[in-house]
Amino acid sequence: MSTIPFVIAVHGGAGTISPDKPNEAPYHEGLQAALRAGAAVLEAGGSALDAVQAAVQSLEDCPLFNAGRGAVYTADATHEMDASVMDGSTLRAGAVAGVNGIRNPVTLARTVMDHTSHVLLIGEGAIRVAREHGVEMADAEYFHSEERLAQLERVRAQGAGVTALDHSAQAMTDNGAPIREDGKFGTVGAVALDQHGNLAAAVSTGGLTNKRPGRVGDSPIVGAGIYANNATCAVACTGTGEHFLRACVGHDIHARMAYRGESLEEAGEAVVHGLLKEIGGSGGLVSVDAKGNVHMPFNTVGMYRGVFRQGGQPQSYIFRI
Amino acid sequence: MSTIPFVIAVHGGAGTISPDKPNEAPYHEGLQAALRAGAAVLEAGGSALDAVQAAVQSLEDCPLFNAGRGAVYTADATHEMDASVMDGSTLRAGAVAGVNGIRNPVTLARTVMDHTSHVLLIGEGAIRVAREHGVEMADAEYFHSEERLAQLERVRAQGAGVTALDHSAQAMTDNGAPIREDGKFGTVGAVALDQHGNLAAAVSTGGLTNKRPGRVGDSPIVGAGIYANNATCAVACTGTGEHFLRACVGHDIHARMAYRGESLEEAGEAVVHGLLKEIGGSGGLVSVDAKGNVHMPFNTVGMYRGVFRQGGQPQSYIFRI
Repeated sequence: MSTIPFVIAVHGGAGTISPDKPNEAPYHEGLQAALRAGAAVLEAGGSALDAVQAAVQSLEDCPLFNAGRGAVYTADATHEMDASVMDGSTLRAGAVAGVNGIRNPVTLARTVMDHTSHVLLIGEGAIRVAREHGVEMADAEYFHSEERLAQLERVRAQGAGVTALDHSAQAMTDNGAPIREDGKFGTVGAVALDQHGNLAAAVSTGGLTNKRPGRVGDSPIVGAGIYANNATCAVACTGTGEHFLRACVGHDIHARMAYRGESLEEAGEAVVHGLLKEIGGSGGLVSVDAKGNVHMPFNTVGMYRGVFRQGGQPQSYIFRI
Repeated sequence: MSTIPFVIAVHGGAGTISPDKPNEAPYHEGLQAALRAGAAVLEAGGSALDAVQAAVQSLEDCPLFNAGRGAVYTADATHEMDASVMDGSTLRAGAVAGVNGIRNPVTLARTVMDHTSHVLLIGEGAIRVAREHGVEMADAEYFHSEERLAQLERVRAQGAGVTALDHSAQAMTDNGAPIREDGKFGTVGAVALDQHGNLAAAVSTGGLTNKRPGRVGDSPIVGAGIYANNATCAVACTGTGEHFLRACVGHDIHARMAYRGESLEEAGEAVVHGLLKEIGGSGGLVSVDAKGNVHMPFNTVGMYRGVFRQGGQPQSYIFRI
């Protein structure tokens, strides 16, 4: 049985340049670790679905990224996380929104897909599935972070309803992060093409610092923050979730390819620099098509991202190249 | 300022024919009352957005339909309702999922759109918005229904995880409903074109009888159960929510029109009788385009639906015509 070269791409959020002297190294390490985790699955002949899940689990376990362990705090100083997976070979999907106490929300999203008849489960109902299927839980201490709490306090100081700092208002410290922590659209995601020609995507997020409890963005929404279809592409987004929801970003890229014959790049550029910007949206995405082309557009100053092709080395980027 | 003739279409769910001698009259009355409520707004020069909200509020207030007052019971014998609105002139949207105690969930969805910076709010966080903005609440007694509880018991009797009756297994009574109550995909929805040329859609549901708490279908998801864009169409769906989510039904109809030049009817037929059926989905939708064409396709035996054109009379239908 002939196989094709695999490729995997990941992202760790998008945003504006930090004014601090940045320390980029730990971010590159985090992205490359995720790429290696996904590539190990693909190298062994595993599925794109398993690979993107492994890559996102790696990013969730890294405290630098806003997902899983590194999830930001809500306005109630709690954590509410969202995650999703989608299999381009079957159009099956699983997603959870508003969960806490789950070590790897993406694993729970996969469990919803594999072990229930549902696509999207929220809150306590989703956590119940985790308990029923032995998905690993984690206590509040695991998710606690002095840096994230300090972020919440800084954002709160700007007033009610603010979910990211207006950096024109005051100078902040970012503890060396290359992209301003307080203004970053923090999501992690992965897309992959496996050796069997199947596409898949996975996304996970802690949402917005100081967000209103119950707020859900595009990350767990099939067709918005995530989409995968072997006929066209796999997409994983990060940015101002409400705009990505309204623009149906993931499905729009698929539809432009399927119905208008656009390339992955043409479709991604049109969406990220077109409709999304017209309605005020900021952010970006990683995407891969069935031929292994990778496109990682963003309309912010930077986006943590990386790509790993079979036979190559993991490559990671933060600003424009 | 010149105006164009308005049109509004509504639906009250889709499903299979009841074996009982049906009493169709109350269902026609409920659908036509909703059409009149929406048309009154449009006749006065009001917006499509206000009209679809008024129509869905009317359907939510009618105990015959599975939304608002008539919402079905979850596996926990509670109510968890989802609703959404979308404005085709701005692509703005508001949605709530997993709420209880809200008399008109569609009103809360509109409140999320008008009074928060968010699109989708779930559970307690959404209910908090209702309290903050004086959205009308209702107690458990308002939502209580002996018929709905009996439905829950009948579905439970078929076993865990079953969310609609397998009618091949046993004969049931439907209390005169033309479409089998226990197997119906209960959602209500409305789409409209106003005299100013703007499109809008609204959807509301109680979900599935005996559903797992936390389960969310397509109803509150922009691009799946609902979509509106002045450039193309407004769509409101009803059916097996998980399939509608995976097929991104609302946005797919828009995309086929925008990118492939299909008519409203061509796009709707392709989705409802094509991709949706291929992945196992059952249900239908009501849709209207910017020229006032209305299309109401379904792949079930019947769908409660109706249409009201300016200068005409409200027309309602249950089975094929």
